[in-house]
Amino acid sequence: MEAPFNSFAYFVPVGKVEKEIISTLFTEKQFKKGEPFLQEGKICRHVGFIIKGLMRYYLTQDGEEKTFYFARENEFVSNYESFVPQIPSLKSIEALEDTTAYVITYDNLNLLYSTMANGERMGRLILEQVFVQALQNLNSFYVDTPEQRYEKLLQAHPDLQQRIPQYYIASCVGVKPQSLSRIRKRLSLH
Amino acid sequence: MEAPFNSFAYFVPVGKVEKEIISTLFTEKQFKKGEPFLQEGKICRHVGFIIKGLMRYYLTQDGEEKTFYFARENEFVSNYESFVPQIPSLKSIEALEDTTAYVITYDNLNLLYSTMANGERMGRLILEQVFVQALQNLNSFYVDTPEQRYEKLLQAHPDLQQRIPQYYIASCVGVKPQSLSRIRKRLSLH
Repeated sequence: MEAPFNSFAYFVPVGKVEKEIISTLFTEKQFKKGEPFLQEGKICRHVGFIIKGLMRYYLTQDGEEKTFYFARENEFVSNYESFVPQIPSLKSIEALEDTTAYVITYDNLNLLYSTMANGERMGRLILEQVFVQALQNLNSFYVDTPEQRYEKLLQAHPDLQQRIPQYYIASCVGVKPQSLSRIRKRLSLH
Repeated sequence: MEAPFNSFAYFVPVGKVEKEIISTLFTEKQFKKGEPFLQEGKICRHVGFIIKGLMRYYLTQDGEEKTFYFARENEFVSNYESFVPQIPSLKSIEALEDTTAYVITYDNLNLLYSTMANGERMGRLILEQVFVQALQNLNSFYVDTPEQRYEKLLQAHPDLQQRIPQYYIASCVGVKPQSLSRIRKRLSLH
């Protein structure tokens, strides 16, 4: 579990006792490619920390799937809108590749916050980071052009072309697949 | 300062010592109608707690102001995307009415988290609430029709018609002012 330890240690000191608590409360879980982490209409019961693999966030609108985010190695995966108030989710999350994640339940996460030294502080700091990232991503749909969204996506996922099918990239950029080809052509000319 | 005390006490016990810390670190501030709480391009240095009044969040796109949120009495006001990483804001916030708020600086908020008993816990819980609310509002732009957004806005602000000019309501609903009149007519027929 070195990866999550390191990630938590970025925010607060993580000693032997803290590692024990974290190892006890998180469980390793495998998600086959295409397997859901969360389905629309269900309550999000877990937060995951991705060790290996890739997850896709999407929502269904007028019968059409709209992809709006990808989470990858060393990132947290959850839908906080459903997880925090424990209400049904409007969004779905699924594995785009065979994925390994350490997952924690709602109750165990609260236990982690209260039992781990600096647990609340860690929770607050991680939440701030996740919050800002989510807001920046959502705002980007308003303020950025599809070109800019594509470039930001490339920055976050330099291995984008290899790992993510074109129609998911197009959906996340907010264009039709044929427009994405034009964007890629334009950008490659610069 | 009873209003913020009560709001904080919803999350964690707030005794005499905590009240002292809160009173010391927050400052009462008046914003005249039209006065900015935060300007695009500036770093958001404060979080405010509104006692009286109303604030409007907006961004400028192609030279046009887009209103996307209103904060009112007993609500926090800040742009966390700018406040948390202390980077320039893409959004502006201004007082829509003469507004009184208790404000706290970035450094003092961190002092509050670390010195107040359960300060980190309070921070985490408030952040969760603010986070979920912000996500729900932003998502509503994707998943809801203008009618639905208008109805949600009415729920959050039952005194909407009296307090908020029609063009700001229209902008926040995502339609032109003339379309808003049609929406209001349709809804009043039900």
